Amino acid sequence: MGKLLIVGTLAFDAIETPFGKTDKILGGAATFIGLAASQFKVDGAIVSVVGDDFPEDYLNLLSSRNIDLSGVEIVKGGKTFFWSGRYHNDMNSRDTLVTELNTLADFDPIVPEDYKDADVVMLGNLHPNIQLSVINQMTERPKLIILDTMNFWMDNSWDELMDVIQHIDVITINDEEARQMTSEYSLVKAAAKIHEMGPQYVVIKKGEHGALLFHKDQVFFAPALPLEEVFDPTGAGDTFAGGFAGFLAESKNISFENLKKAIIHGSNLASFSVEEFGTERMKRLTKEEVNMRLTQFQKLTQFDIDLK
Amino acid sequence: MGKLLIVGTLAFDAIETPFGKTDKILGGAATFIGLAASQFKVDGAIVSVVGDDFPEDYLNLLSSRNIDLSGVEIVKGGKTFFWSGRYHNDMNSRDTLVTELNTLADFDPIVPEDYKDADVVMLGNLHPNIQLSVINQMTERPKLIILDTMNFWMDNSWDELMDVIQHIDVITINDEEARQMTSEYSLVKAAAKIHEMGPQYVVIKKGEHGALLFHKDQVFFAPALPLEEVFDPTGAGDTFAGGFAGFLAESKNISFENLKKAIIHGSNLASFSVEEFGTERMKRLTKEEVNMRLTQFQKLTQFDIDLK
Repeated sequence: MGKLLIVGTLAFDAIETPFGKTDKILGGAATFIGLAASQFKVDGAIVSVVGDDFPEDYLNLLSSRNIDLSGVEIVKGGKTFFWSGRYHNDMNSRDTLVTELNTLADFDPIVPEDYKDADVVMLGNLHPNIQLSVINQMTERPKLIILDTMNFWMDNSWDELMDVIQHIDVITINDEEARQMTSEYSLVKAAAKIHEMGPQYVVIKKGEHGALLFHKDQVFFAPALPLEEVFDPTGAGDTFAGGFAGFLAESKNISFENLKKAIIHGSNLASFSVEEFGTERMKRLTKEEVNMRLTQFQKLTQFDIDLK
Repeated sequence: MGKLLIVGTLAFDAIETPFGKTDKILGGAATFIGLAASQFKVDGAIVSVVGDDFPEDYLNLLSSRNIDLSGVEIVKGGKTFFWSGRYHNDMNSRDTLVTELNTLADFDPIVPEDYKDADVVMLGNLHPNIQLSVINQMTERPKLIILDTMNFWMDNSWDELMDVIQHIDVITINDEEARQMTSEYSLVKAAAKIHEMGPQYVVIKKGEHGALLFHKDQVFFAPALPLEEVFDPTGAGDTFAGGFAGFLAESKNISFENLKKAIIHGSNLASFSVEEFGTERMKRLTKEEVNMRLTQFQKLTQFDIDLK
């Protein structure tokens, strides 16, 4: 049973897709990461901030999954971070309609004492200085520090981002962001440049086109499971990261071979997350469903070839 | 040693990429298919048409690869099909600058007697009526008929296309074309609709994002090998089809398991084709290089996962 420390947003999301729209529902990177990671045998903890408008039911959902919430600050009279977005017909692109930082604007993460020796730290997409602050509070160097980021921080906090990624092991980033970060179109070249910036493992997320794991001269690819319907992609990347981090926290093995498995587990869980709005699908996901789909992943990608 | 009948263009290509440009060089679907298929133990034959401006060297290259050219009509005083295109910076899209059909405009395919009992027929991208004419000349139903097509025929010869695909086993088509053909964005749904149109196997090519093989409820995915540089994508799809068809003609086994291997062989050969202009890379490709990269494909995609 490994310890996994998760830093990221707890949020309200309002989502429009070609299939329908929601009012404010449970969202946020830490939520999706936590729900995915809770599929594994881990002692999880979330460091985050919400207002007192954040429903207790949402907190109870997370704590019922063996996720410690003592690191979640509840700001009296404050409002919880709110994001609203509308997906285009292809579901691959979206417009942000509203971003209200609210209590997130002054977020000062405090790592609970019990998790300052966490095995794995998953730094969800946040200001690089917040991510760095968490790393600096650890009393023992975690076995693995994973960082997710996005183009917004490249545009606005480049130096701080370059600083924090010196201190991490794995960066997860999407393909367009990897290109922006390195000015390289080829993802092979982009990954090589990102290696030089610090992280020894580079995970490039390609959405419906799968994910690549780079480590030195090695590369591994996991496809996204071909689905009849993608209903709501919100949180897919965080679910992927949560499955990745959760599996590694449980197995406490950070070899390339084991990171490959983690990529498959992350891809597998993300394939469920997109099937319904928000966290709906992840909330009632069973071990049997997870295993059945892992078998589908094997069938999708495994082959025997005879060299001649 | 299986017999493989290839129908497709022999052509001059003039190509512009961000890396440089060529004068008229050897191109055409049948050329790329033939060179790829010749990596396998097959008796190949090409049915095509050229003008007498088509260099003997080009024909000799193909016949030196055990490809019978008795079905290639050489039109006296005629000019060979010419295509010219310019790739955009991302190498994923291109503009056609020139298309001169020339002798291709009146192409009437004649299948050589020796190949009317071919094991595998690979119908390169051509007018559906030409593809159907070849099928009708076969004296024995081939073990496998593979057809490649494109959006141009969907726009201009829909009924003829719907007719010919009643008679084939495998269709290869790219993702955008599969969507156009079925009005379905989901490739899973698109493949299901294409199944209903005739072919029991549907191969959807996604370029740098790999290829999917659908058969009834089964699906298999082969990634494209992540490359440092894509130098010239011309012929990648045909090289893929040639590797696919060549492997199946050699093995004479049309089970789903064997088609999976064929997809990997096709993807493997296509990864070489794009490394240099036109046919340059394929011309000097060795068995050792092919095997080495097959090993890379294995490493790229194979994993062990323990279900719990």
